Amino acid sequence: MTRLHAPSALLADGWATDVTITLDDAGLIADVVIGAPPGDAARLAGPVLPGIANLHSHAFQRAMAGLTERRGPSGDDHFWTWRETMYRFLAVLTPSDVMTIATQLYISLLKGGFTSVAEFHYLQADTDGRPYADPGEMGASIIAAAREAGIALTLLPSLYRQGGFGVPANEGQRRFVLDDEALAGSINRFRAEARRDPLLRVGLAPHSLRAASLDDIARWVETIRSEDATAPIHIHAAEQPREVSECLAATGQRPVQLILDRLPVDDRWCLIHATHLVPEEIAALAASGAVAGLCPTTEGNLGDGVFSLPAYLDAAGRFGIGTDSHVGVIAAEELRMLEASQRLVTLRRAVAATPEQPSSGTFLWQNAASAGALATGQPSGAIAPGRRADLVVLDGAAPMLAGRAAALAVDTLVFAGGESLVRDVMVAGRWIVSDRHHPGEARAGAAFAALMRRLLG
Amino acid sequence: MTRLHAPSALLADGWATDVTITLDDAGLIADVVIGAPPGDAARLAGPVLPGIANLHSHAFQRAMAGLTERRGPSGDDHFWTWRETMYRFLAVLTPSDVMTIATQLYISLLKGGFTSVAEFHYLQADTDGRPYADPGEMGASIIAAAREAGIALTLLPSLYRQGGFGVPANEGQRRFVLDDEALAGSINRFRAEARRDPLLRVGLAPHSLRAASLDDIARWVETIRSEDATAPIHIHAAEQPREVSECLAATGQRPVQLILDRLPVDDRWCLIHATHLVPEEIAALAASGAVAGLCPTTEGNLGDGVFSLPAYLDAAGRFGIGTDSHVGVIAAEELRMLEASQRLVTLRRAVAATPEQPSSGTFLWQNAASAGALATGQPSGAIAPGRRADLVVLDGAAPMLAGRAAALAVDTLVFAGGESLVRDVMVAGRWIVSDRHHPGEARAGAAFAALMRRLLG
Repeated sequence: MTRLHAPSALLADGWATDVTITLDDAGLIADVVIGAPPGDAARLAGPVLPGIANLHSHAFQRAMAGLTERRGPSGDDHFWTWRETMYRFLAVLTPSDVMTIATQLYISLLKGGFTSVAEFHYLQADTDGRPYADPGEMGASIIAAAREAGIALTLLPSLYRQGGFGVPANEGQRRFVLDDEALAGSINRFRAEARRDPLLRVGLAPHSLRAASLDDIARWVETIRSEDATAPIHIHAAEQPREVSECLAATGQRPVQLILDRLPVDDRWCLIHATHLVPEEIAALAASGAVAGLCPTTEGNLGDGVFSLPAYLDAAGRFGIGTDSHVGVIAAEELRMLEASQRLVTLRRAVAATPEQPSSGTFLWQNAASAGALATGQPSGAIAPGRRADLVVLDGAAPMLAGRAAALAVDTLVFAGGESLVRDVMVAGRWIVSDRHHPGEARAGAAFAALMRRLLG
Repeated sequence: MTRLHAPSALLADGWATDVTITLDDAGLIADVVIGAPPGDAARLAGPVLPGIANLHSHAFQRAMAGLTERRGPSGDDHFWTWRETMYRFLAVLTPSDVMTIATQLYISLLKGGFTSVAEFHYLQADTDGRPYADPGEMGASIIAAAREAGIALTLLPSLYRQGGFGVPANEGQRRFVLDDEALAGSINRFRAEARRDPLLRVGLAPHSLRAASLDDIARWVETIRSEDATAPIHIHAAEQPREVSECLAATGQRPVQLILDRLPVDDRWCLIHATHLVPEEIAALAASGAVAGLCPTTEGNLGDGVFSLPAYLDAAGRFGIGTDSHVGVIAAEELRMLEASQRLVTLRRAVAATPEQPSSGTFLWQNAASAGALATGQPSGAIAPGRRADLVVLDGAAPMLAGRAAALAVDTLVFAGGESLVRDVMVAGRWIVSDRHHPGEARAGAAFAALMRRLLG
């Protein structure tokens, strides 16, 4: 048993002071006591928060960060020209390359306050478009990277069958497609790993309505759920206006409307982006219990548009955050960008806050932690008995946090701070980041650098 | 004479490789040679950029970062409720407190890639609203802080006479008001300092059309310019829709229209924010030669709205960046937020880039550096003979920059990096930040922390 004492802790019903957290040997929280002196408990260096589950990652894209910020010859740059660059880049990556990229990325995510990550895994096939001999080989690289970094992982192999509504996959997309047999083989492989790894969870990621038919999605969701009734299901939806108009043209319905009407969406589903919604879809998405998977820095980078957060919160909708293309890797920065984009279009402040939780930073962090855990199927997201001890400790000695009570410290972290205010990070009862340092960061950084020199050389 | 050699350098006409920069003993650039081997020149650790002049700072507001992110009882939170909190907070600050805050802030700005800062100085009077015995006492604290930190300073004492169009200043605003005699006294004091400090420049900041009459502004601009024909003049304009509607009601004209029509605006003027413009104002502002002083992270935090950058660039308008309330202190983050806000509302990418300079990061950095120097009256902003050696060196050994040519390194810095990629910073030929470390940071941080504990205790 390990006992930790924090000057303040964000519990399910808000901030508490002088909190003692007892962990069992499996890394779960056994007990939480408020108001007791520390005694012989290990003293944490500042306020403690539940770690956030990053609910949307395409790990390999970390290697592309900064490579697509050039104006094209036409000047008409948008998501779809970015996607072409991405396709060319990923045509060459091997499983070993992906492990190198993912290891470096996951260490950065941990330092940024994320304690688990959902990998929306669509780079699945070999460079020639055929499955690897072991169809789960690429996913196994992701699993190995997560173990190396010490982050909990929800692996979501992707159902990807076509390049658009009724359009075959093109050359750039051939590595995304696995046929039924290969997909089943890779899922079996991942589940075998998960049986002996409590930090690994396996779900499914139907890529999008444009990349798989409703029938294929429904069939695969049923298959997955027949073995694991609460397996996480993630799907991209309504990221771009063109996607909405193509869906309308092909089906007569908008994508989120169609997903909610035709698929068995529940609170273990996560709709990634969900940017372009009409009011009826906002209400229906909130009512479904599913989590909106917002990726603020990527959505800002790609020019996707602004999610309708005020209406969604009014409808009691759940949201979490993901770093997607990994131009940002810091939880606080995602929350800041989410709120800033809302403020810029509503001309209001404290959009994400309530009378019960007026601290906007606390509200954002707590919601992202709890919905993130739900959407990734990880037993984290709250500091409470029975939850896994995935914890983030702020640096109470940082000048920017001096004199600030816990809620103000988190407001400062989210609205005016960054990675350096996150001091220590624990996953499943084990310290992974200590005093802003991860023991594997130098080695992972050197391997990433060598790979980048080779790829760009 | 000092000689520096960089693997690549951003010069006035773009990137060059193998660049040798020779400095004279006054810290000015004497010579720039392209393509020569380093010889015995000191080798810089990565690509070198001109330092950016931060063109809008209210230093004392750094102490408030994170303190105003709470939802108010009505839920109707916006700029004007933030301003009330700000007024209460600043009612107690002494010149010594402001020096403590500004020293810590300016060190952070240097580490973030800013080599000079324009202080829009309106906290001028004593707590009772009377001038200090030395009316420039508070400004002298700012000067002392800049010297302690090693940042170049453009001090802009404020003309502030009323609380709104035809409305007297209220209690919360009494520290902003100096009468003509006290303002003249403080300007004389600052100019005396500037005569023996080459890093100090003095200008004027008419606060806004709501805080000073057009006649007062015109009279004071004439007074300042009679002694220094190129003194920088900065004014807040059109930050908020309410400010525009109040100006329309009081004068029949919009604020930027009125400033351009009635005041002698030239290329040493800087209009801060300029958020809410009609097309005629965008064209007229660009044609005036004045610099638009954009403050992206503060504008996002305050919910000000989105500047019309595409139309302004089409009209060949100049823009620079400021950190204003200092919720952000990193140059790359300001540029990222500027571009992200544009992408979110236009649904395009690479908004700020041209066929001649397709690298969006390079375009943003170079424009902010050159317009920033112009608007602050500092002889920096470019790596060219005769300019002051205010330089920012990126960490060429950082894994995230590995294999990336200089333009891609800057794209990565601006769109996916942060403070840690800025390795060394030079001001006027002197290294101020070395390997991400400022020699005064520990002492300044401790003093700031002690002050915050006292203020919030």
